[in-house]
Amino acid sequence: MNENFLSPLTSQFQVQYRYSVQFTKGIFDLKNPSLRDFLISEKKDGDTKKALVVLDQGLISHYPNLVSEIKEYFNGLTLVVQLTGDIMVIPGGEVCKNDPQHWDSLVKAVDLYGIDRHSYMIAIGGGAILDLVGYVAAVSHRGIRLIRIPTTVLSQNDSGVGVKNSINYHGKKNFLGTFAPPIAVFNDLLFLESLDVRDWRSGMAEAIKVSLIKDKDFFLWIESNTHSLKNRDLEAMAYLVHRCAELHMEHIANGDPFEFGSSRPLDFGHWAAHKLEYLSEFSIRHGEAVAIGMALDTVYSNQKNFLSKVELDRILDLLKNLGFVIFHTKLAENEKQILYSGLQEFREHLGGKLTIMLLAGIGIPREVHEIDEKSLANSVDYLEQVV
Amino acid sequence: MNENFLSPLTSQFQVQYRYSVQFTKGIFDLKNPSLRDFLISEKKDGDTKKALVVLDQGLISHYPNLVSEIKEYFNGLTLVVQLTGDIMVIPGGEVCKNDPQHWDSLVKAVDLYGIDRHSYMIAIGGGAILDLVGYVAAVSHRGIRLIRIPTTVLSQNDSGVGVKNSINYHGKKNFLGTFAPPIAVFNDLLFLESLDVRDWRSGMAEAIKVSLIKDKDFFLWIESNTHSLKNRDLEAMAYLVHRCAELHMEHIANGDPFEFGSSRPLDFGHWAAHKLEYLSEFSIRHGEAVAIGMALDTVYSNQKNFLSKVELDRILDLLKNLGFVIFHTKLAENEKQILYSGLQEFREHLGGKLTIMLLAGIGIPREVHEIDEKSLANSVDYLEQVV
Repeated sequence: MNENFLSPLTSQFQVQYRYSVQFTKGIFDLKNPSLRDFLISEKKDGDTKKALVVLDQGLISHYPNLVSEIKEYFNGLTLVVQLTGDIMVIPGGEVCKNDPQHWDSLVKAVDLYGIDRHSYMIAIGGGAILDLVGYVAAVSHRGIRLIRIPTTVLSQNDSGVGVKNSINYHGKKNFLGTFAPPIAVFNDLLFLESLDVRDWRSGMAEAIKVSLIKDKDFFLWIESNTHSLKNRDLEAMAYLVHRCAELHMEHIANGDPFEFGSSRPLDFGHWAAHKLEYLSEFSIRHGEAVAIGMALDTVYSNQKNFLSKVELDRILDLLKNLGFVIFHTKLAENEKQILYSGLQEFREHLGGKLTIMLLAGIGIPREVHEIDEKSLANSVDYLEQVV
Repeated sequence: MNENFLSPLTSQFQVQYRYSVQFTKGIFDLKNPSLRDFLISEKKDGDTKKALVVLDQGLISHYPNLVSEIKEYFNGLTLVVQLTGDIMVIPGGEVCKNDPQHWDSLVKAVDLYGIDRHSYMIAIGGGAILDLVGYVAAVSHRGIRLIRIPTTVLSQNDSGVGVKNSINYHGKKNFLGTFAPPIAVFNDLLFLESLDVRDWRSGMAEAIKVSLIKDKDFFLWIESNTHSLKNRDLEAMAYLVHRCAELHMEHIANGDPFEFGSSRPLDFGHWAAHKLEYLSEFSIRHGEAVAIGMALDTVYSNQKNFLSKVELDRILDLLKNLGFVIFHTKLAENEKQILYSGLQEFREHLGGKLTIMLLAGIGIPREVHEIDEKSLANSVDYLEQVV
């Protein structure tokens, strides 16, 4: 046989991604041009595009007119985009990622309304809604254009500006998902006013996280603005969200965006946090769990002599001064389970060798590949006492 | 408020993809180094990787020892890769993409065996199995490394070397899926010997398709090798598969790999084919439907005076000489349904403006944006008479 028929072939290509995150106030105010200008700029061919809007149920109680405001906003845009069917309202929070019926209802709507790859899905809500809608958009017709309008601190400064989506599978958090950038993100500052105190606060955990492993100046800024941030100063929060989103986006674009290799996402404090969320049956918010997870890994960093006692105190003080509770009884009750199955699930989800990010100083990460039982137990004890 | 807090952020990055398609004979022969060498070359860190193997049930009747051969092959590789659990055997063909229980059983296995993002899923079988396993691999943990071992003409020369995966959703073909390149593909020529005559033949439809729209020389080669190809000459088939795979991979890498824009996949003859597969309740093979779809669009191209009668005859003759039946009664019985809902579903799946590829000559595509009812009816009548 002619061996030419057996010569190997290689396929090599790159795929370009680009999206912008705009910061605005009152996105569905008829005078606000942000979303309208974007949609008009995307109208490249003559066709009117379809859009399916999915709204976080939690917003309705704060903004009873939101559905009609959205409809009115799009009424002025019918030559550019047409809303299909009713605006879908889905309960936010972890429940929408846990219960497959929500996933199914969205896929059914994509089919029913003929939402195609050039149409839009517009997700408005907290991180869970954005994750769910993002996943549906990513796998329906192999990818519908996704516009995210995050409405919480956490989603505006972290997941909502990133490239991931997911749902849970039989209690395993984010087991199913893809890497699929949105085509645009609109952070509307005014939505943050609707947050209850826990959601206002818990979203700041990701900002503290990113400051601890990336940017000491940002940590210092948060420290000196603790009072304003705790007292719901919208301008201070606007800066926190903007800077956190910026650091998050830089990490993605300059690193390994789809995490093919062993490079790490920004997951300081997250290994125990994921397990703790589950053990608390999601009674604590993601950010609250991350604050506890960061406190734990900060104490552990000090136990291993990576981090000074002065810096340890400073970090725990910041968390406490912002109102975070940095201990949870489930942490002490399930220490071994958190250690073993928590680490294992964390490793499995990211793949490859276990890598845990600790701190060698504020703004200075240090990676380790194991957690020792004794130092962890000491860290849990320490936290229980200082809380 | 300081307007700096409102300045937009932009994320821009590119993601690199690279994979090779190797052509081999007897991939699980202990003396065959192809797969072994690849797996060893991928062992970058000290860890032994896990692999979950999924096998097309159809292969077992032809190769009753295949499961034990695969196990023996991996027995010599335990420091590099360890098979987890049993080799999973799934019925091939459209049923595995239609019935969600197969999808679910694979995701469960990923969870149960702790298959992580650095582990492998190895799919061995026809295009449907590769699509299903590829979809599970793409969405579990946001992407497990996929190795494809296509075993049919169709999958070796087309889908198995491409970047897509999918399952069906309530009868809608490929409704759910992603763009996710494999990390490697191994085309084993010997598996083609196991194919029944219909599968041997139907896979050639994609080669004819790509020759008609991309490469007249390849068309001439197929024409002059009709006899060998029909009579199951393995060397002739090796060339056909290799050239078709090459053209397919070039189109992906040099075009718009994830089809973000309006560029077309290589889908000549496919709009009616998809609908016909469905109307025949999948009693005809994908390649058989594509042959009919190509015959229809070729006649239509002539009806519209794009394509000469000489070239029309030549194309239909080639299809018939290879043994393709180029008409199906469902075509005449459901002419209007095929025209309207077939075109609509085709447009919706790809999104944007309807674009149908026709022929202006052998090797010369021509795009149109509508199909007229009368010329289509004439084309169906024509086919019914010449079949």
